[in-house]
Amino acid sequence: MAEKLNDAALDQLFREARTINVWKDKPVAEAQVRALYDLLKFGPTSANCCPARFRFIMSDKAKDRLVPHLMEGNQKKVRQAPVTVMIATDYAFAQHLPKLFPHAPDAKNWFSDRDVADETAFRNGTLQGAYLMLAARSLGLDCGPMSGFDADAVNREFFAGTTYKVNFLCSIGYGSDEGIFPRSPRFDFEEAAAIL
Amino acid sequence: MAEKLNDAALDQLFREARTINVWKDKPVAEAQVRALYDLLKFGPTSANCCPARFRFIMSDKAKDRLVPHLMEGNQKKVRQAPVTVMIATDYAFAQHLPKLFPHAPDAKNWFSDRDVADETAFRNGTLQGAYLMLAARSLGLDCGPMSGFDADAVNREFFAGTTYKVNFLCSIGYGSDEGIFPRSPRFDFEEAAAIL
Repeated sequence: MAEKLNDAALDQLFREARTINVWKDKPVAEAQVRALYDLLKFGPTSANCCPARFRFIMSDKAKDRLVPHLMEGNQKKVRQAPVTVMIATDYAFAQHLPKLFPHAPDAKNWFSDRDVADETAFRNGTLQGAYLMLAARSLGLDCGPMSGFDADAVNREFFAGTTYKVNFLCSIGYGSDEGIFPRSPRFDFEEAAAIL
Repeated sequence: MAEKLNDAALDQLFREARTINVWKDKPVAEAQVRALYDLLKFGPTSANCCPARFRFIMSDKAKDRLVPHLMEGNQKKVRQAPVTVMIATDYAFAQHLPKLFPHAPDAKNWFSDRDVADETAFRNGTLQGAYLMLAARSLGLDCGPMSGFDADAVNREFFAGTTYKVNFLCSIGYGSDEGIFPRSPRFDFEEAAAIL
């Protein structure tokens, strides 16, 4: 039976982890990126639909394509970060269910309604984005998630002619303490939760 | 600097963790539920907007209200699980930004466009749902997430007259090996990801 992780691990994953705004000049290796994927891929999704698609922006050439579409405050951060992941969603995910969910051969048809498919894609692709962030932290990497960008322009630049749309971005690397905001308040349990 | 968590922790969070279908008759204490919230609340959200709202269904009375609205295959599981969390989203989250994001007094106005607000609410509330699952696993608890329920009926029963809507459900407790599906395939790195 699983036990509670130790306090250092809980601090690293949740309590002490902070969104990074300034990145150290320390590279992330391709092997780390692959190890990250090999953890996050196991996170649960509805009917194992795995609709997230990941683009790891690491080269200057790829940064040149992304940076013009970011809000000004995010441009320097993405230039500086060794990796920025584009978490995208494949809205045609259902075509892969015969492979991903083999024990239910009709699973593809559960998503024939467009609204159901779109909501499932966005919900589960976003869950996978969170798995990515916590997998990164579990590997000793820091995260800097961002929503401040021109999604239409990013889609045109990276996903024209595909069924993919960008969801959000997350820089990954080794964060500097510099530029970290003071921790913002969280809701108390009673403000956000209830036991029924 | 943070280090990689040990293999046992990575197994517990990702590699060996499985969606539970049969629950042991072992309770989860209110203190564990509060400890769970006190971890997940630190996960990052856009402008710290924290739009998820959590209803921890633990009493028979609350299960009586929820179970009739579940797909048949989920009814027994929720009856059996010591806790089932309703992860809901507050679509009026922006009103709380003066409290949650105090260093940007105009943050509330970033979400005055209804489509932007709705997308932000769903994306970030879903991220928090993933934080909940990984926080539960980090505390040694198992998860059984579910989307198979009548969302309109659940909203009428639990959230009438509010700005909250249910997102998904997740049972939490101690799982039995019984009823666990064989691990379904995942995409290889090249199928779902690319380094640019």
